[in-house]
Amino acid sequence: MGRVTVQRRILRLRDSAVSRRVDALAAEEPLEIRLNGKALTITMRTPGDDFDLAAGFLVSEGVIGSAAEIDTIRYCAGATVDGENTYNVLDVRLAPGVTPPAVSLERNFYTTSSCGVCGKASLEAVRTVARWEVSGDPVRLEPGLIAMLPDRLRAAQRVFDRTGGLHGAGLFTASGETLCVREDVGRHNAVDKLLGWAARGGRLPLTSTVLMVSGRASFELVQKAVMGGIPVLAAVSAPSSLAVELAAERGLTLLGFVRGSSMNAYTGEERLAGVAAV
Amino acid sequence: MGRVTVQRRILRLRDSAVSRRVDALAAEEPLEIRLNGKALTITMRTPGDDFDLAAGFLVSEGVIGSAAEIDTIRYCAGATVDGENTYNVLDVRLAPGVTPPAVSLERNFYTTSSCGVCGKASLEAVRTVARWEVSGDPVRLEPGLIAMLPDRLRAAQRVFDRTGGLHGAGLFTASGETLCVREDVGRHNAVDKLLGWAARGGRLPLTSTVLMVSGRASFELVQKAVMGGIPVLAAVSAPSSLAVELAAERGLTLLGFVRGSSMNAYTGEERLAGVAAV
Repeated sequence: MGRVTVQRRILRLRDSAVSRRVDALAAEEPLEIRLNGKALTITMRTPGDDFDLAAGFLVSEGVIGSAAEIDTIRYCAGATVDGENTYNVLDVRLAPGVTPPAVSLERNFYTTSSCGVCGKASLEAVRTVARWEVSGDPVRLEPGLIAMLPDRLRAAQRVFDRTGGLHGAGLFTASGETLCVREDVGRHNAVDKLLGWAARGGRLPLTSTVLMVSGRASFELVQKAVMGGIPVLAAVSAPSSLAVELAAERGLTLLGFVRGSSMNAYTGEERLAGVAAV
Repeated sequence: MGRVTVQRRILRLRDSAVSRRVDALAAEEPLEIRLNGKALTITMRTPGDDFDLAAGFLVSEGVIGSAAEIDTIRYCAGATVDGENTYNVLDVRLAPGVTPPAVSLERNFYTTSSCGVCGKASLEAVRTVARWEVSGDPVRLEPGLIAMLPDRLRAAQRVFDRTGGLHGAGLFTASGETLCVREDVGRHNAVDKLLGWAARGGRLPLTSTVLMVSGRASFELVQKAVMGGIPVLAAVSAPSSLAVELAAERGLTLLGFVRGSSMNAYTGEERLAGVAAV
């Protein structure tokens, strides 16, 4: 696409030295996803891997569980500026027999419960749409291997190298092999791009894999791991309370503050090899 | 509220040492905002300053420009788990004569333009709802003072100290005085809490102030600064391409990578005192 970074002249201050230089910025543009002709969501994202992003978003929200449930994805030719395609609107057609969500996903995902909006309702909403059980995944991981993943993720973040400003998400095997790395201005988008890559390649559920993210672990990221069938989520920074609750309920291993040779296990410690019960 | 952090037992790995400890997690729970009785949005947030968050969200989206445009904000007593209020649903009533948005904000904010969804449409959408012009704000700032703001923000982040996992946003005067600091699991929420604090205190527009954020500067954060009448946005990390475009169009000073005595000025360098033209 050639739109992953944008060049711009900036003023740089280093102590008392002032200079001008050309800087690379991470591109951010809106993407509208239409489902069967109706607007579904708009997200600010870094252009690139848009089909994966759309497919992954649908996996995250429980609309699809495999690429077979999608008929076609294409850029909407009608979405133009002065007759040129903006490449910012995607038309997704579901396969015959696949039911689109009845109403706005944003509105209803957290309100399926009778108890009003609360953390409990959020957990319940994920439970109702989850397609796989990660709790039984027998994968075991060496902590020393997990400690290497932040560097492997970072090394594969090519756009971050140029801009210093993108979230990264990487999918790894239990032996530390890199399966896929994606970057985006939105960390939820980076993970959706991974899930879409997996769905479109027939790889769901992502049994016995590890998802490594560059920032914090929110409820939303644990939800995405669950929806992809990923049993282990590792984050460089802290998890939130609801992220830990969801991981505990779904049987996912949640690791945080993975830095150097240190890490915290919030849930699912039984998947850490060689860690004697304390 | 007593719900800003949650205690949890975790397993801690430090090199080969394994121990158990009780850790404090940043609380994350959904908040539904209802406007004149209709569901408007749901956001995952850290509980606390919820009224400010709701008011600030409405300022950000251009629904209100002052607290006088709000009649009442209250927790919805009907949103209960087993008869107890969840404190996760807010009912906002606009003052008589104030028009609520016709439809879902998420759906339409970026689609008011005829050109389909694109960066240009996003800029135009902000232009149509902006209530103040920040371009004429004559404030000038010493770079040395700006360099002190990340530490001042960090020092005021009391929940971050306990959890290591919250975004911070601080509002400062041109002489570096702290006006207000807010924290949240969502960085957009931290800024909305600031804007709502300002709106409810009759402080809008926030002329000649500086907004300092702990992370990156996205389009959305520049939008919020514009909607609050804040002329300077400084971020510890990188801005996105669309953030810089919006700042340039609206005449806002956008600073990034504010670290130690260094920073980059992406737009509005004329507000930096003592920086000779290069």
